[in-house]
Amino acid sequence: MYEELKERVYKANMELHRYGIAPFTWGNASECDREHRVFAIKPSGVPYDELTPDKMVIVSFDGKKVEGEYNPSSDTPTHAVLYNSFDKIGGVVHTHSEYAVGFSQAGISIPALGTTHADFAFGEVPCARELTAEEVNGEYEVNTGKVIVEHFRENNIDENAVPAVLVKSHGPFAWGKNASDAAKNGAILETVAKMALNTLTLSASTPSIPQYLLIKHYLRKHGKNAYYGQGK
Amino acid sequence: MYEELKERVYKANMELHRYGIAPFTWGNASECDREHRVFAIKPSGVPYDELTPDKMVIVSFDGKKVEGEYNPSSDTPTHAVLYNSFDKIGGVVHTHSEYAVGFSQAGISIPALGTTHADFAFGEVPCARELTAEEVNGEYEVNTGKVIVEHFRENNIDENAVPAVLVKSHGPFAWGKNASDAAKNGAILETVAKMALNTLTLSASTPSIPQYLLIKHYLRKHGKNAYYGQGK
Amino acid sequence: MYEELKERVYKANMELHRYGIAPFTWGNASECDREHRVFAIKPSGVPYDELTPDKMVIVSFDGKKVEGEYNPSSDTPTHAVLYNSFDKIGGVVHTHSEYAVGFSQAGISIPALGTTHADFAFGEVPCARELTAEEVNGEYEVNTGKVIVEHFRENNIDENAVPAVLVKSHGPFAWGKNASDAAKNGAILETVAKMALNTLTLSASTPSIPQYLLIKHYLRKHGKNAYYGQGK
Amino acid sequence: MYEELKERVYKANMELHRYGIAPFTWGNASECDREHRVFAIKPSGVPYDELTPDKMVIVSFDGKKVEGEYNPSSDTPTHAVLYNSFDKIGGVVHTHSEYAVGFSQAGISIPALGTTHADFAFGEVPCARELTAEEVNGEYEVNTGKVIVEHFRENNIDENAVPAVLVKSHGPFAWGKNASDAAKNGAILETVAKMALNTLTLSASTPSIPQYLLIKHYLRKHGKNAYYGQGK
Repeated sequence: MYEELKERVYKANMELHRYGIAPFTWGNASECDREHRVFAIKPSGVPYDELTPDKMVIVSFDGKKVEGEYNPSSDTPTHAVLYNSFDKIGGVVHTHSEYAVGFSQAGISIPALGTTHADFAFGEVPCARELTAEEVNGEYEVNTGKVIVEHFRENNIDENAVPAVLVKSHGPFAWGKNASDAAKNGAILETVAKMALNTLTLSASTPSIPQYLLIKHYLRKHGKNAYYGQGK
Repeated sequence: MYEELKERVYKANMELHRYGIAPFTWGNASECDREHRVFAIKPSGVPYDELTPDKMVIVSFDGKKVEGEYNPSSDTPTHAVLYNSFDKIGGVVHTHSEYAVGFSQAGISIPALGTTHADFAFGEVPCARELTAEEVNGEYEVNTGKVIVEHFRENNIDENAVPAVLVKSHGPFAWGKNASDAAKNGAILETVAKMALNTLTLSASTPSIPQYLLIKHYLRKHGKNAYYGQGK
Repeated sequence: MYEELKERVYKANMELHRYGIAPFTWGNASECDREHRVFAIKPSGVPYDELTPDKMVIVSFDGKKVEGEYNPSSDTPTHAVLYNSFDKIGGVVHTHSEYAVGFSQAGISIPALGTTHADFAFGEVPCARELTAEEVNGEYEVNTGKVIVEHFRENNIDENAVPAVLVKSHGPFAWGKNASDAAKNGAILETVAKMALNTLTLSASTPSIPQYLLIKHYLRKHGKNAYYGQGK
Repeated sequence: MYEELKERVYKANMELHRYGIAPFTWGNASECDREHRVFAIKPSGVPYDELTPDKMVIVSFDGKKVEGEYNPSSDTPTHAVLYNSFDKIGGVVHTHSEYAVGFSQAGISIPALGTTHADFAFGEVPCARELTAEEVNGEYEVNTGKVIVEHFRENNIDENAVPAVLVKSHGPFAWGKNASDAAKNGAILETVAKMALNTLTLSASTPSIPQYLLIKHYLRKHGKNAYYGQGK
C-alpha cells in the first residue's frame, strides 16, 4: 500500500539533494494522503545514496508510525502539525539551505525585495519567534510546528500564498501541493534568500517593493486570471 | 517558416540555462527578423528540459502571436517595445541572475568599476526608475519596456554601447545583435555584477574608473580601430 | 602491514578533495591505530590525482616515520600531538576550506548561531591563540598542536563534543572516530562557517542560540537518548 | 619550430579555463624561451573550445609577431615587458578572476592575512597605481607592464617571492617558472583573494599576520631548507 506515495516522496527527497539545499542528510520531504490521514516521509539520518522508495516511512496525522522498517525523520511531528493545521497543503520539506539558514539564524524575515520574491510568495517569508525553554524541553518538534502555525494565524498570513517559513535559530520549512512542489518551493526560497542577501549587502535599508507591484506579480502567476505559463 | 529563427532562439534559451542565469524557468530569449517585423520567443513557464525548437512562438512587432501552439513568455510585450525602439538590436534576453537582481532590487546601477565592465559597456549599466501604480496596473509589460527606453533616451545613453539595463525591483534585460549574443551579454552582465559586489563589499565608496580608461577599453574592443580579437 | 588503515586514510584524503575543502594539495587526513600507537597520513605535497593507498605514510605517535617511501605531510607533528592528547579520537584532518579559513584569519571563533551548528558541536568552534615567535621558530607544528590542546584544556572544552578548532591566522583542524568521520566533520565545519558568515553579514551582532536549544539539539543527535538517525 | 612550447602554452590556457579564472575568453597564458628571446601566447578573443596548440602565436621579446596565423592576445606587450624585466620568470598569465578583480577594482592590495597566503607569496600581493591618461592613451599595454615593474622596483619587492600583482581598475597578472606554474599561481591568487574577502567581511580591520609567521610559512615551502612536499 502507499507505493505510489512512497515513490513520489522518495523522488522529492532526491530533488532536495539535487537542488543542493539539503547538505549531508540535513533535509526531509513528505507528502500526505488526506483521505487516509497519513503521510510518507524520509527515514532519519539515512544518506541520500542509500535511499530507496521502500525505505520511506508512513506516519499517521497524529504522528504515529503506520508502516516502514526505519525510524522516520526526527522532524516528523512538525510535518504532522503542518498537515493538521494547513488543510490545503499536500507536501512539506525541511532543509538546511545556506542562505535561508543565514536569515533564520539572524532572526530576520526575508523581505519581498523584488518580483522574483513576489512570483513566489505574497509578502515576506516570515521568521517565527524563538521557542521558549519549556517548548524546547517539552514536545520540541510538535512545538516547532505550533509556533509556525501560531505565527501564520496571529499575523493573518495565508499559508497558501506564503508557502514557506523560517524557524528562528534553525532553518526553513516550505510546502506545496505535493512533495515535489514543496521541494521546488524550498529551492526557490534559497534563491530568493541569496538575492536578498546580495541586495542587503549593497544597501542594508532597502525597502520592500510597493504593494501594487507585489500584488501584480503574485496574481500574474497565481491569481484567477494568471497569464504566466500555459494555463492549468 | 521561421525554422532557422526558432532554432537559434531555442539554442539561446538553452544557453541562458547553461550560463546559470535563468534559474527554474525564469528567463527568456528572443531574436527578431526585421524584414518581416516578427520575433521568436520562448513559451511561458515551460521547463528547460521540455523545450524544443518547434515550441518557440512567433510574435509580431506589435505584440500579436503569429505562429505557435504555446503562449509566449509573459514578458513578450517588453521584448516588442525594445525591438520597436532600439532599431539595431537583433536579440533580447531577460534573466533572474542572482547578482544583477541583487543590484536591481537595491535600485543601484552597476557602476563601471573596472576594465571588465568597460570591455562590455560604455558606462554604468543603469537601473531604470520604479514603475508607478498606474503603469503596473495598466499594460505592465509594455510599460516596463517604455520605462527602459525612456531611461536611455532621457539620459542620452546609446543602447548599442550599453547593451543591458536593470529594471528596478525586478531584474536585468540584455540585448545584442542576435539571441545568442544577447544571452552572452546577459551572462557577462552577471559576472560584472558579481565583481562589482565584491569590490563594493571591500570599499563601499569605490569610484568609477577614469573616463580615459573607459574610453580606451571600450574602443579597444568595440571601436572602429578595435584591436582585440581577430577582426571581423 | 597497515594495508587497511592506509586504504581508509587514502579514501578520506580523496573525500577532502571531493568535499571541495582541500584546494590544490592543501589538506591532509590521518587515522590512528591506538594499539600500535601509529597513524597513517597523506604524503606531503602530492596532487590528489597521483595519490594511491600505498603512498600513505605510517608514523608513530612520537612523530617518527615507521613505513613509507614518501615524506609525510608537513603537518604530521600536529596530528601526533592531537592523537597523544585527545585519547578517544581516531582520525584527524587539516584543511584550507575558504570560510573556515576566513574565520581563522579574522581570529574569530565560529559562534553557535543555529541548530545546524548545535547538531555538530556543543558550543562555539574556538579560535585558539596566535603562536608566539618562539613557538613558530621552534618546533612549529608540534607547538600548533600544543596550542590547540592548551585552548581545550584551559577552557574546559570537551574535544569529543567540539570536534574542530581554528588555528589563528591559519585554518581548521577537525577530528572524529576515524579518518572518514574527521573528513565529514571538516566539511560540516565549512558549511557551518558559511552559514555563520551569511548571518553575520545580515546582522553583525547576532547572539549565540539559547543554551537550552544548544543542549536539546546536541543531545537529540549525540546524547545517550539520541533519537536522530536509526540508532547505533 | 616551438611545437613543444606551443603545446605547453595551449595546455596552460586550457588550465585557466578549467580553474574557472578566465570567464569567456578573458585570460591569456604565455611561456618564454629565453634562449631565443621569444614567447608563445594565446591568440586574441578565440573561444576556449576552438583553441588548438597550433593557434598559439610566437612573439619576440620586443613584442613583434614571429610566427602564427592569428593576432596574439591584446595584452601581449604587457607579457613582453614582464619577460624583459623579471629575468627569472618563465610563464605569465592574465586573468579576470572574480575575487582578485574585486580587489583590483577597489584598488586594495591583498594583505597577507594567513598562512595560505604566506605559502604562496612573501607579503601582500600589491595593487599597482592607476595609469595616467597619457599612459593609457599612449602604448597602453606596454605601460601596464612598466607600471607593474615600477611598483616592484620602487617598493623593493622580489618578483620571485611575490608571483602576482593587481593592476588597478583592471585585474591580476601572475607568473611562475613556466606557463602551467603561472596558471596555478593565478588560481591560488583567486583562492587567497576569496579567503581575504571572507575575513575582511567578518572584520574589516584584520591586520596582516606577524612577520615571523610569514617568514616561517614562506620558507617552509620555498626556502633552501624547505620541508613541504617531496623535495625537488
